[in-house]
Amino acid sequence: MRNPGFSSAIVLSLCIPAGWSQQGPAVRSPEVAPDRTVTFRLAAPKATEVSLTGEFMKGSKSLEKDVHGVWSITVGPLEPEIYYYNLTIDGVRTIDPGNPNVKTGSTPSTISSILEVKAGSPAFYDGQPVPHGVIHTNWYHSKSLGALRRVTVYTPPDYNEGRDVRYPVLYLFHGANADETAWTRLGHVNLILDNLLASQKAKPFIVVMPFGYGIPPGTPRPAAGEGPSDNDSLFSRDLVDDVIPFVEARYRAFKDRNQRAIIGLSMGGGQSLAIGLNHLDLFAYVGGFSAGLRPADFPKTFAATAANPQAVNQKLHLLWIGCGKDDSLMTASKAFDDFLSQHKIKHTFRESEGAHTWMVWRRYLNEVAPLLFR
Amino acid sequence: MRNPGFSSAIVLSLCIPAGWSQQGPAVRSPEVAPDRTVTFRLAAPKATEVSLTGEFMKGSKSLEKDVHGVWSITVGPLEPEIYYYNLTIDGVRTIDPGNPNVKTGSTPSTISSILEVKAGSPAFYDGQPVPHGVIHTNWYHSKSLGALRRVTVYTPPDYNEGRDVRYPVLYLFHGANADETAWTRLGHVNLILDNLLASQKAKPFIVVMPFGYGIPPGTPRPAAGEGPSDNDSLFSRDLVDDVIPFVEARYRAFKDRNQRAIIGLSMGGGQSLAIGLNHLDLFAYVGGFSAGLRPADFPKTFAATAANPQAVNQKLHLLWIGCGKDDSLMTASKAFDDFLSQHKIKHTFRESEGAHTWMVWRRYLNEVAPLLFR
Repeated sequence: MRNPGFSSAIVLSLCIPAGWSQQGPAVRSPEVAPDRTVTFRLAAPKATEVSLTGEFMKGSKSLEKDVHGVWSITVGPLEPEIYYYNLTIDGVRTIDPGNPNVKTGSTPSTISSILEVKAGSPAFYDGQPVPHGVIHTNWYHSKSLGALRRVTVYTPPDYNEGRDVRYPVLYLFHGANADETAWTRLGHVNLILDNLLASQKAKPFIVVMPFGYGIPPGTPRPAAGEGPSDNDSLFSRDLVDDVIPFVEARYRAFKDRNQRAIIGLSMGGGQSLAIGLNHLDLFAYVGGFSAGLRPADFPKTFAATAANPQAVNQKLHLLWIGCGKDDSLMTASKAFDDFLSQHKIKHTFRESEGAHTWMVWRRYLNEVAPLLFR
Repeated sequence: MRNPGFSSAIVLSLCIPAGWSQQGPAVRSPEVAPDRTVTFRLAAPKATEVSLTGEFMKGSKSLEKDVHGVWSITVGPLEPEIYYYNLTIDGVRTIDPGNPNVKTGSTPSTISSILEVKAGSPAFYDGQPVPHGVIHTNWYHSKSLGALRRVTVYTPPDYNEGRDVRYPVLYLFHGANADETAWTRLGHVNLILDNLLASQKAKPFIVVMPFGYGIPPGTPRPAAGEGPSDNDSLFSRDLVDDVIPFVEARYRAFKDRNQRAIIGLSMGGGQSLAIGLNHLDLFAYVGGFSAGLRPADFPKTFAATAANPQAVNQKLHLLWIGCGKDDSLMTASKAFDDFLSQHKIKHTFRESEGAHTWMVWRRYLNEVAPLLFR
């Protein structure tokens, strides 16, 4: 069908709300050149200082202003990757207003612009012409927290085909300042698994991504009373008493510890290790990516693990710890590796390149997913 | 379960990537007072000019700087609503860096901060303790466009209960600069329908929200060749040849014109009216919210409608046009109302308060959903 004479350009220009200025950026930013150098630009004739920070470089760099008041800087060439960056305009750290691709989370500190540098061929985290799973946003009432919460669920491509087939489940946690959309929007978990499944490198499983805050940022801590009141204990209760029952009632999931995995990154890595290792009745695969751990707490948090290594080793099919060499949490991960070795707990410790970034966590997921439910 | 000694505050402080400055906003913004006045703040000692624009006021207002370099302004009291706003810092229109709640879309012009002013009781678009539907993010390969695309689907709360029950489908389109997540993230379509269903004011139906650009912003127009090459014609082909078949293969949807509705807002309203009225073989309910229409094109775009009003009136169960009095598209909507009346096409023309905003579109959805599939 044709809609003759119907022009989007016209409609676009009509759709600027009346009274709003059109000071939007007239410049292209970011621009990735064929040699993978990247130019950032900002039209800001009145600004006196503009600088760039980003995961593709150390520290910050100043942009240069031209006679038209357009600031710019070229960096790279950069390796094909997805990077986050910010512009600081006269001392205010903000996004690149010329780039529609914005990373958000549960606190302001996480707001960044997203730069995607493509290679000649698709990356393991890119959408490709393969069968695709579905991302579900579910709302549920958490009895533990007395709150309406969201949980994101990925079902693999063949989920809709066989009505009576059940699937294993990976419970996958985000880090501090993020939310239940982080693993799909930033981690590309669905595309990574779709690609692994298409090349038969992983078994199909459901992924459940809850909101990792028992006490959401900006909300007051509950008054001391009955039951736990700290963030991670509340999250743990929500997971065990609300999320898992909700998922197993709603989805065709196996209800069997051998078919459940628990992995998290950063704050969520601390959660997945603490909850997973203290709930071997529920989980047989446990992982922590760049985990938020405090070595002084190991003897208390992992007391049950240390006390009975033989039973733990028998029950655990996988205990996977990974951290990047440039991550400030590496010391804690190494200490946990030592703690586990000292107590003769079988585990994999992956010391990789990289810092505290989604680049590392996407690669870890791509590496660990094939090891699950084997 | 308790995770003794495991402190989120510590993990949070650990999770700041090394090398990144912590220049983030130390001030609270926006802050809604009990009297519903709202204070916006920005820590920007080096800035020389900071102003605010927002849907809650006309034009822009300057913020005042205090001795600590914190800029602020108080507006209102404001009616309980969800508003979008921006700060302009030394001439650069950007978001409020202190507010994690950011509106994004498919172009930079749509990036704003989100201000939610709550009333004493929940609004019709708020999450409430009622049964909840599910939002699905589906990836599909569009043969029409030769592209991998996303389509958002809402299924009502009881969808998972009755395995053999089929549902009517509303195809619902976003406006210019937005994307396939706009109706859920900004329009709260799922919460509005959950609430209507809980109070038995609407029939349960599936909602399908495709990406409305045949030619996505920033991509080159396809070379002239066989078939249509303009944005709306390409979108129409994708809808009819790819989205509808995908949805009807994947979901328990009725495949019957009497069980299909098509509605859009702004650019998407132009699309829903043009596609809907030219495809009465597919749709029996047609609507346009603040529709992007060009009166000069009516005789051509709606030639078939004008030519056979009797057949059109017989087939259409609902033709609903709405526009706000302060919307610059009101002239076009009024002209369309006149065009339809002149050609004796039965329709509803709703002239409401409001401008070209999501406040209006959420209310229209709440008003129109109860009229569908009756």
